[in-house]
Amino acid sequence: MTTQRAPVVDGLQYANWSKKIFQQMREGGVDAVHVTIAYHENFRETVLNVEQWNRWFEQYPDLIFQGRWASDIDIAMETNRTAIFFGFQNPSPIEDDIGLVEIVHTLGARFMQLTYNNQSLLATGCYEAEDPGVTRMGKQVIKEMNRVGLVVDMSHSAERSTLEAIELSDRPIAITHANPYDWHPALRNKSNTVLKALSESGGMLGFSFYPHHLAGKTDCTLQSFCEMAARTAEVMGVEHIGIGSDLCQDQPDSVVEWMRVGRWSKEIDYGEGTADNAGFPPQPDWFTDNRSFPGLRAGLLKSGFSEADTDRLLGGNWLDFFRENFTPQASV
Amino acid sequence: MTTQRAPVVDGLQYANWSKKIFQQMREGGVDAVHVTIAYHENFRETVLNVEQWNRWFEQYPDLIFQGRWASDIDIAMETNRTAIFFGFQNPSPIEDDIGLVEIVHTLGARFMQLTYNNQSLLATGCYEAEDPGVTRMGKQVIKEMNRVGLVVDMSHSAERSTLEAIELSDRPIAITHANPYDWHPALRNKSNTVLKALSESGGMLGFSFYPHHLAGKTDCTLQSFCEMAARTAEVMGVEHIGIGSDLCQDQPDSVVEWMRVGRWSKEIDYGEGTADNAGFPPQPDWFTDNRSFPGLRAGLLKSGFSEADTDRLLGGNWLDFFRENFTPQASV
Repeated sequence: MTTQRAPVVDGLQYANWSKKIFQQMREGGVDAVHVTIAYHENFRETVLNVEQWNRWFEQYPDLIFQGRWASDIDIAMETNRTAIFFGFQNPSPIEDDIGLVEIVHTLGARFMQLTYNNQSLLATGCYEAEDPGVTRMGKQVIKEMNRVGLVVDMSHSAERSTLEAIELSDRPIAITHANPYDWHPALRNKSNTVLKALSESGGMLGFSFYPHHLAGKTDCTLQSFCEMAARTAEVMGVEHIGIGSDLCQDQPDSVVEWMRVGRWSKEIDYGEGTADNAGFPPQPDWFTDNRSFPGLRAGLLKSGFSEADTDRLLGGNWLDFFRENFTPQASV
Repeated sequence: MTTQRAPVVDGLQYANWSKKIFQQMREGGVDAVHVTIAYHENFRETVLNVEQWNRWFEQYPDLIFQGRWASDIDIAMETNRTAIFFGFQNPSPIEDDIGLVEIVHTLGARFMQLTYNNQSLLATGCYEAEDPGVTRMGKQVIKEMNRVGLVVDMSHSAERSTLEAIELSDRPIAITHANPYDWHPALRNKSNTVLKALSESGGMLGFSFYPHHLAGKTDCTLQSFCEMAARTAEVMGVEHIGIGSDLCQDQPDSVVEWMRVGRWSKEIDYGEGTADNAGFPPQPDWFTDNRSFPGLRAGLLKSGFSEADTDRLLGGNWLDFFRENFTPQASV
């Protein structure tokens, strides 16, 4: 069965999940969301997070279900629900055990960042002073991720590691939530060198609406965002851009502290924030929750994106990417 | 696509797995095997055992693959491979966490014993002096196993717990590897009361070839086994019997000690063995490995089983049972 309209897919969210948010996904017409289920959790803790999602799937079967394959986006559209795809912003769930790559894929993980800001066992994060590139274990894990269909995500990685991961990976990788450094020079945003290498290898960039990644932060306008998206389409090709909103809706500030510090430091680290602005920054008024997608569509169309390209940017490209990259590699 | 011949399915093995054994499965025409992947392992240790199987699936894709659904038996027959289904002989992999029931099902577990000889968090094993029946957690876990499609296996459980599990479970349960107590009065063998309750609820008994469960032990004859099978068919109905060979091929005796003692005792417990015969007993000469299935078929036919009933006993019944009991319960 084929559906007429293009899907709306958000390439990353980490909200304080609730029935309200799942209902807002439906109100916003969001067909699929890649949700973060681990920042610093080890394997067993990550499994507890899967268990929590299983309870939500059981409690709200009319709103959400677990997405495993691209075809689940079709099912979501046919049944008016949102398909939830799991991902990790850190490789902590696989600990030091390459065998866990296949295990977490079986449990539904579809994206895994090789690093979250810091050096990991696999690669270097964007906050380290030095970036020695992908490690010995990193090379093995990329190969294994390619084999099972777990997408390499370099959103929080440093430049050399990112370029090496693009080069080493046999399958396209993703930067699920970041913007061009050219538009807003944040440590987390990406250089044109990275964006070009990413798109040339078939990869995807998801545009982030996290204020620290936006020109003007909370005051960033929808028009400025759309103009940036148009320029990025020129750099990368419109087939390689999507949304990865990085929406952290309803999270208490304790969560951003966990994201930044985990258990790796006794001293507070403010990440993209500062001592006097340590919490989650307020969202721009044109993107506050899942109900903001129709307004985003209108803004993209108004700024000159064609209907077809707007459909691509809001979900069609992610659908194509999911289709190619979530299944195990055909054995040779 | 439908296949002509009936499948051969072994309802339980725990061998010291090797390419040789996987090849013998093919030589014996065995289409599916339920393999034990945990005796006393906790969740994380069980995952390590899944990882080991994943390596075997990767190394021997022309011989074996992971079975998840009954339809994988069709695929096995079409591709001349053996589908390997996972199970636990103890609920230790779910620890004290009911959320792990769905997690282990997602990882491929399809059978879980509520006990292994001893009292567990869920029910009572057949070696305990007292059997107070299914526990509070046991009742919750049976409901959850029913929901996700994880079959309750009472092979090593005590009588009252077994009868209560049959009664409490909304879906049929299994005794994957045991024989009638009437034929050979071992603690592990089952009374006619249990066998009748099992079959009346749609459950399955898998006949064991573990010598301690056989009349005459190692010297048990194929004829004696076939006569017992015919009598059991009269008690239970021929739709409710199959094979659960309990083949522990090539295992060192250290493994039977692990099975019996795990980490629960500092003193040795000989289980069904004795101090002067503590190891694995030798198999009867008519069932030594997976290549013995054709001889078993010949014996059953010779003893008076029809072709159709022999097909049922050697795999057709398990196929039907897998089809009904491995998928999640339809939501109400």
